[in-house]
Amino acid sequence: MAASIKDVAARAGVSVKTVSNVVNGYQFVAAGTREKVQRALDELGYRPNLSARRLRGGRTGLIALAVPEIRVPYFAELAAQFVQLAKEYGWTVLIDETQGALDNEREVVEGIKSHLIDGLIVSPLALTAKHIEARRDRTPLVLLGERLTHAPVDHVSIDNVAGAQAAVAHLADLGRTRIAAIGSQPHISGGTAALRLKGYRQALRRARLAYDPALVMPVTRFHRADGARAMQALLDLEQPPDAVFCFNDLMALGAIRTLLARGCRVPQDVAVIGFDDIEEGQFSTPTLSTVAPDKEQIARLALRLVHQRIGARDDAQPQEETADFRLVVRESTAPAG
Amino acid sequence: MAASIKDVAARAGVSVKTVSNVVNGYQFVAAGTREKVQRALDELGYRPNLSARRLRGGRTGLIALAVPEIRVPYFAELAAQFVQLAKEYGWTVLIDETQGALDNEREVVEGIKSHLIDGLIVSPLALTAKHIEARRDRTPLVLLGERLTHAPVDHVSIDNVAGAQAAVAHLADLGRTRIAAIGSQPHISGGTAALRLKGYRQALRRARLAYDPALVMPVTRFHRADGARAMQALLDLEQPPDAVFCFNDLMALGAIRTLLARGCRVPQDVAVIGFDDIEEGQFSTPTLSTVAPDKEQIARLALRLVHQRIGARDDAQPQEETADFRLVVRESTAPAG
Repeated sequence: MAASIKDVAARAGVSVKTVSNVVNGYQFVAAGTREKVQRALDELGYRPNLSARRLRGGRTGLIALAVPEIRVPYFAELAAQFVQLAKEYGWTVLIDETQGALDNEREVVEGIKSHLIDGLIVSPLALTAKHIEARRDRTPLVLLGERLTHAPVDHVSIDNVAGAQAAVAHLADLGRTRIAAIGSQPHISGGTAALRLKGYRQALRRARLAYDPALVMPVTRFHRADGARAMQALLDLEQPPDAVFCFNDLMALGAIRTLLARGCRVPQDVAVIGFDDIEEGQFSTPTLSTVAPDKEQIARLALRLVHQRIGARDDAQPQEETADFRLVVRESTAPAG
Repeated sequence: MAASIKDVAARAGVSVKTVSNVVNGYQFVAAGTREKVQRALDELGYRPNLSARRLRGGRTGLIALAVPEIRVPYFAELAAQFVQLAKEYGWTVLIDETQGALDNEREVVEGIKSHLIDGLIVSPLALTAKHIEARRDRTPLVLLGERLTHAPVDHVSIDNVAGAQAAVAHLADLGRTRIAAIGSQPHISGGTAALRLKGYRQALRRARLAYDPALVMPVTRFHRADGARAMQALLDLEQPPDAVFCFNDLMALGAIRTLLARGCRVPQDVAVIGFDDIEEGQFSTPTLSTVAPDKEQIARLALRLVHQRIGARDDAQPQEETADFRLVVRESTAPAG
């Protein structure tokens, strides 16, 4: 016969209420007690009935994190932070890949899976504020990133304009004068690319460098191959750049591959800086300078917002949080030489 | 009032049974019909009651894929294949990171989430056959990788001994004679490292090269930093190697970083080959030779096994499937020069 919650309580020597608290993932259970209960749960093979708990107003302890592409290292590294930090709330994070497709993103925020999920954290590429406003599902939702900065929903982002400015100012400070940008997305209004382009232009202006549209390379995606291809086009210009700001590290690593394959020295001939601070850039040759968003802080802020929202009234004001970033200078940027 | 399945059928102009088929993710619904139904579902905001469906013997359409580390590119790329191919079954894949910890892996296979999940695909690092045999949960389970090759459960892997042999034979064919190995895990019995070490030793024997234990570097994990560190130690030997077989690409990329930073040319001074064929190796300088498991085939085989198992009797014989691999030669391996 299946073990009941009473059996578990008896085995652990605690009250049924305490077992229930552990099973429901409440935070304020002493670590020792939690362990004792967990051992009893394991030994007896107790399986809480999640549906029943949900009906009673209980929680499943599951949080869904929806990201566009799990094979993009920035999202993989961010997801790993969420998995790690969610343990502090007793939550398990399940990762859902949307491929940035509107249908998938709508399915997530419309809560097709909301019987199962206590909270949603979504990094959207296609959703609009309209979709958020029309949302019927009431599962607590927190958005990440730059796609939807004015939707009526909790939100965590970094200051992308300032981050891009810092990258380009660094290149200008090194004496670079023809600074290219890889990653514009003129077909998309708003979002990451538009903000980083804005920061790029502001930094050029402050450094009194001319803005040359020929040095701004559009891409469809932010992958290595896009960066490699864009760099080919930049090297084919009559006046190639002496520095490149790539809107993410992955494109920067693709651009460096093209530069080295075509006999250009990095950073001597062309300095390269990315954005994201993925681990790969610490082991590339040259190592990659970058703008590093504080991924741990992003995860921490988003989880706290979900936690607050779970306990909040439906009409509680949406919160807007901004995580930090820092400039990380490595081998790929240096004065011309 | 919430829309009923009848409302959806009326709006789509199809039978209730057809709506139910679409909602339950059956495969054999014509694409046009599926679209019509989907549109009606969307427009009416119909939300199937997953728990009720489960009770009726229905399905949630959710498959969980548990991998040790989502930020390890091999797993991220494999997960992306699963997400993509699962659509053919109408399934959504949720990714669960276990960090290779026994407790997490047990929680997954013991079905803590089995109310929610139609099938489990797990790539274990710590589980033993004993845990599988003691399993009470009946959610269909498929294992990936080399950790548990003789447990009574469906399983997909590649021939790791043959893969490692191919890598090392390639280095020997190039005329390399002091071939090192990075990635042994003497503290772990069985599993990936043991099999790749076995293939390494067999290939040395066939090439009539002496086995030198000093050239075999143990690691705790398969990360870039482990490869970089092991390469330091190899270069500090009185007789450094002229080639290195790393048990995965990530360690190979770390090893290349160390080699270049210490002024060694790759491949002229030291040839390097990895295992996994992650995208990063196509854009590194030099690009990385590797053994490429067919990730798409792994995902395809595992999903087919889950699908079969969902419809199978409990006592159906466990299936064992082997996916292909191939040797991919890029810039990091060439004759000494």
